Amino acid sequence: MKVTLVKASATDEDVVQAARVSTQGLESLGSDTKPAGLINYLMRDRHGSPFEHTSFTFLVEAPIFVAREHMRHRAGWSYNEESGRYKELEGVFYKPGPERPLVQVGKAGAYQFESGTPAQHHVVDRDFYSSYSWAFQHYRGMLDRGIAREVARMVLPVGIYTAYYATCNARSLMHFLSLRTKADGAKFPSFPQEEIEKVALQMEEAFGNAMPLTYLAYANNGRVAP
Amino acid sequence: MKVTLVKASATDEDVVQAARVSTQGLESLGSDTKPAGLINYLMRDRHGSPFEHTSFTFLVEAPIFVAREHMRHRAGWSYNEESGRYKELEGVFYKPGPERPLVQVGKAGAYQFESGTPAQHHVVDRDFYSSYSWAFQHYRGMLDRGIAREVARMVLPVGIYTAYYATCNARSLMHFLSLRTKADGAKFPSFPQEEIEKVALQMEEAFGNAMPLTYLAYANNGRVAP
Amino acid sequence: MKVTLVKASATDEDVVQAARVSTQGLESLGSDTKPAGLINYLMRDRHGSPFEHTSFTFLVEAPIFVAREHMRHRAGWSYNEESGRYKELEGVFYKPGPERPLVQVGKAGAYQFESGTPAQHHVVDRDFYSSYSWAFQHYRGMLDRGIAREVARMVLPVGIYTAYYATCNARSLMHFLSLRTKADGAKFPSFPQEEIEKVALQMEEAFGNAMPLTYLAYANNGRVAP
Amino acid sequence: MKVTLVKASATDEDVVQAARVSTQGLESLGSDTKPAGLINYLMRDRHGSPFEHTSFTFLVEAPIFVAREHMRHRAGWSYNEESGRYKELEGVFYKPGPERPLVQVGKAGAYQFESGTPAQHHVVDRDFYSSYSWAFQHYRGMLDRGIAREVARMVLPVGIYTAYYATCNARSLMHFLSLRTKADGAKFPSFPQEEIEKVALQMEEAFGNAMPLTYLAYANNGRVAP
Repeated sequence: MKVTLVKASATDEDVVQAARVSTQGLESLGSDTKPAGLINYLMRDRHGSPFEHTSFTFLVEAPIFVAREHMRHRAGWSYNEESGRYKELEGVFYKPGPERPLVQVGKAGAYQFESGTPAQHHVVDRDFYSSYSWAFQHYRGMLDRGIAREVARMVLPVGIYTAYYATCNARSLMHFLSLRTKADGAKFPSFPQEEIEKVALQMEEAFGNAMPLTYLAYANNGRVAP
Repeated sequence: MKVTLVKASATDEDVVQAARVSTQGLESLGSDTKPAGLINYLMRDRHGSPFEHTSFTFLVEAPIFVAREHMRHRAGWSYNEESGRYKELEGVFYKPGPERPLVQVGKAGAYQFESGTPAQHHVVDRDFYSSYSWAFQHYRGMLDRGIAREVARMVLPVGIYTAYYATCNARSLMHFLSLRTKADGAKFPSFPQEEIEKVALQMEEAFGNAMPLTYLAYANNGRVAP
Repeated sequence: MKVTLVKASATDEDVVQAARVSTQGLESLGSDTKPAGLINYLMRDRHGSPFEHTSFTFLVEAPIFVAREHMRHRAGWSYNEESGRYKELEGVFYKPGPERPLVQVGKAGAYQFESGTPAQHHVVDRDFYSSYSWAFQHYRGMLDRGIAREVARMVLPVGIYTAYYATCNARSLMHFLSLRTKADGAKFPSFPQEEIEKVALQMEEAFGNAMPLTYLAYANNGRVAP
Repeated sequence: MKVTLVKASATDEDVVQAARVSTQGLESLGSDTKPAGLINYLMRDRHGSPFEHTSFTFLVEAPIFVAREHMRHRAGWSYNEESGRYKELEGVFYKPGPERPLVQVGKAGAYQFESGTPAQHHVVDRDFYSSYSWAFQHYRGMLDRGIAREVARMVLPVGIYTAYYATCNARSLMHFLSLRTKADGAKFPSFPQEEIEKVALQMEEAFGNAMPLTYLAYANNGRVAP
């Protein structure tokens, strides 16, 4: 899972400026209010629109099953993904590492994870390798025989890496983060799959760097998108 | 590819009523205009909003690679899909039939397809079967050893069937149809993959049955979403 | 403020069906779970998408300043409004009644309202009448002299009544209600203007009638849109 | 009507980069294709998503009736507007100038405009002045008597100036331009009101400056949003 910030047009000042358009003349939140206080007020009382005048573009390299979860986020998100119809896919696959918990326990909707035994880790290593390499061999074989890319790719697993551009604003990003990360102090529980959380955490870091006051207000107000 | 219309609240009269709210009192398009003429005018001059007060809900059963293309349609679409995290997936896979053209010719962005030789069809039959069954065998094997569903599913191919609810309005449906079907008389070219076109054509039929005047206007005005 | 439910395709069963597509096979929330429990779980843990496969269409008659606030809601809402360019507007205006509080106290962003003195109510009665009738007289006078409707209407006040179709799904409706009503037990505060709250409360009633279990879950979980 | 470009993160190169993520490896449109050719191909064949990884933020000062038309554009647009609930509005109003055609002729949906007689222009001058000043006098009078801003503003006309931040991407901007400007060579007719067209034309200029190749492709392909 690799997330690269391609570009950002997103600062705390953008939020302040947009909010001031609405409230200029507002005594207690007017030009005297400090940016940190204004942003915290907007977050706490869920005035979301001032956070939308911002833009982040990321390049994400992640397996298809992660891309699929990501692209369910529609409002305020734009995507362009590598196409298996237009290009031959490279044989790069995601394999759970030794630290990846393999066993889910507890009840549905709120699973907990446990590491799993050495034997289980061994099975995963072996079966992923066997399954991925078998599929890719068939993919390449069919291409070699002149089968169209859009047909041959059907045998490729959802664990194969894809790449996509994802553009969002600070509000849609916070909505994504609130659902795809878990953190102490979150007002609402979320149970993201570990792999998409790794994507989200890298975006969270870029967000915090670009908009420190907004990020602080988000973290301090229960990690709910305004 | 199987599309079931779960429910629809969508008639030509819905469009007429919504348009009349805007234009009531409008002499030449007012209460005297026949519905067919009003709808054709709205379509031709691209007044899209009156078509939005309608709703179709479909149950789609299709391979993951089709669902992935479908869910890129964000505006005016809602989805709920079977989850490989929550349930054990069944081993039902899509395999190109003997009539499915296998060879792409021509230039990128405007591929044409040719049937392919008997040898190529044989390769596809053999390799799909081999690849799919190998992957599924590993999936089941890992589940049997207690590996979490969300991990084991990573080896499953994008050709496995999934199921999802998709809800849209007539405008977002026409936008989808304009990009995912090809038809004589279309003002803009499109090059959908055959499998998603099969989904789209079943939706097109349900659309034509529910809203015959709207469908006629769509077909007669270059199949451009208004 | 008058809200008429034009049509609805929205039941608690729609939510259950959509959720079951995702979770079928899920032991603890599967086919044995009662609808009320499933819906409450979806609301509490903010699984919003199952609520989107529903549709409400309302005809709203309200002043322009209310329509302006309403139409700021973009995601999951569709609108068609009476057009002052295409039709001659009728002289129907909103005037605050004797029970409408006229005086705001307290700090910005969290105003409280007080009734106001009889003298203040008298001023409002007199000035609204004077201002509205003067504006409408000029509007009609300009139309009589052949001035285009789209020009003459510029002098009309935002208190004049307009009419519009508004279509939404249960999720976008709950988001609207959470911002445009205030209620005991709401997890987040909101300070809607009284007139749009009157629109929202009529929609809330239609919502509760159509989807009683969903409404109950909304009310019991802090009136936050999932 | 005054439009100020607050900031832009939008270049032709952004489009090229996003498209290349999809098509890298694509022979005929790959790394050898010149940006102008690639962008023209995307526009012509209506591949819209690569244009979305861009962002423009404008400050618009325009009358309420223009803002109302503008804010009907929902997909890909964000707004923050001056609030008549939170601040006292200034008495700045829009009045049609001597060059503003006053008389509409022809049929509904495709009106033509004629200048109007000197007498008609005189009536407009007089009646706008009279109506605007009367309304504003009452607004101020009610404020002076302690009536809440959110009540007193109801008498203000839709011709009063408001200010708002509007953020969009290149695709949503082109959609707006295609509906709110008229131009030779447009594939679909549009009949925008003159005042919103003045807003749109200023945005069109900023768009052309920031993304000259994209703008050229838009202009050369019938001014249809991809």
